[in-house]
Amino acid sequence: MAIGRLYGLGVGPGDPELLTLKALRLLRAAPVVAYPAPEDGDSFARRIVARWLDRGQREIAIRFPMRPGPPPAAIYDAAAAQFAAVLDAGEDIACLCQGDPLFYGSFAGILTRLAGRYPVMVVPGVSSLTACAAAAGVPLAQRDDTLAVIPAGLAEDELALRLMQVDAAAIIKLGRHFPKLRRVLAHLGLLDGAIYVERASLSNQRVAPLATIDPASVPYFATALVWRREHRP
Amino acid sequence: MAIGRLYGLGVGPGDPELLTLKALRLLRAAPVVAYPAPEDGDSFARRIVARWLDRGQREIAIRFPMRPGPPPAAIYDAAAAQFAAVLDAGEDIACLCQGDPLFYGSFAGILTRLAGRYPVMVVPGVSSLTACAAAAGVPLAQRDDTLAVIPAGLAEDELALRLMQVDAAAIIKLGRHFPKLRRVLAHLGLLDGAIYVERASLSNQRVAPLATIDPASVPYFATALVWRREHRP
Repeated sequence: MAIGRLYGLGVGPGDPELLTLKALRLLRAAPVVAYPAPEDGDSFARRIVARWLDRGQREIAIRFPMRPGPPPAAIYDAAAAQFAAVLDAGEDIACLCQGDPLFYGSFAGILTRLAGRYPVMVVPGVSSLTACAAAAGVPLAQRDDTLAVIPAGLAEDELALRLMQVDAAAIIKLGRHFPKLRRVLAHLGLLDGAIYVERASLSNQRVAPLATIDPASVPYFATALVWRREHRP
Repeated sequence: MAIGRLYGLGVGPGDPELLTLKALRLLRAAPVVAYPAPEDGDSFARRIVARWLDRGQREIAIRFPMRPGPPPAAIYDAAAAQFAAVLDAGEDIACLCQGDPLFYGSFAGILTRLAGRYPVMVVPGVSSLTACAAAAGVPLAQRDDTLAVIPAGLAEDELALRLMQVDAAAIIKLGRHFPKLRRVLAHLGLLDGAIYVERASLSNQRVAPLATIDPASVPYFATALVWRREHRP
């Protein structure tokens, strides 16, 4: 019996219609569907494709604690072992990944444990990066612009240093780091024109000038789009 | 009569199956389909969705010269005027954009000329950035990595400066700049582990260690993926 294949499927930023034809086909063909989920409650990745899960497929939820910091390696170890058992039994797994599987996603932890041992195929998805630009309706980068994606958890001086070297930036995972980012942007003269985006592509998405945002209202998955003055679209 | 809507539709990196359900729906509903094209020959964006253009829609090709440097503003001016006439007549336009419309694409030149005057909606697509990572099968960025997208046309010292400030980078539009990039990577100790990707997601995609690539074989739309040693996946 042949071993199964592992598919890492990007399911896009949240709008169920931003699923690709390829992810849809592979999702529906796989006997087993896996996805990350919080310790209690629904998986966002699963919710994006819920309308297509009508074929009685077996499901594996990989449950992550919702506290800050990298998830324990033991969670990936256990998920990889569970996946390996399914693949050894000859069944394919469609592993759902919010956004794109290889762009700041938890799929990396699975991939590094199983690549080489099993056939793995990654289907890229629409990332939150371009979904935020679409929500804002402004070009993210053009021509010879350097664009950086910068996690907001960096130290204040690191954030500033990296923002100074680029023409455009998306600062991701804002949450409690928002006041720090706001200070850095004001200090660098980048606050004017900066755009705040939350829940891009969902019906309740929020897009507003960053300077107008109440820091207490900022969730973890929020993004700031910033341009150097001379590159502002 | 209501004016028409302009849709900027990301059609993905090349594999026709990487089209989103949303782009497909809007593409098929629009009476007019527009796309960038070379002065002579086929449009790559059109080719990606050709199988869906079976409804006798009117087509507008925006023809760009294939020489280096930014295209003349007159091309965008003329396209915007042509679009405006269609929209004024109450017809919607689906403007096809290779990859994502707001990620280094020509749609920015149309958007800046028509936004505010007409309703414009952008549908994000799978970008070449994540398609390259999927082709290589390696995580692009994880956790607190800073990721930069850097056009290869920058001067040698600018390239080096920007590469030194990030954990991971995609250097895009390689073409004739490949030997320069290779020098910079070797100088910074980043050549080992760098991956070269060409035509990501197409059946003839090429993925190889960057150090093994013949500079004479590198087209304009090729990408290098680079990681700092301690962040190498």
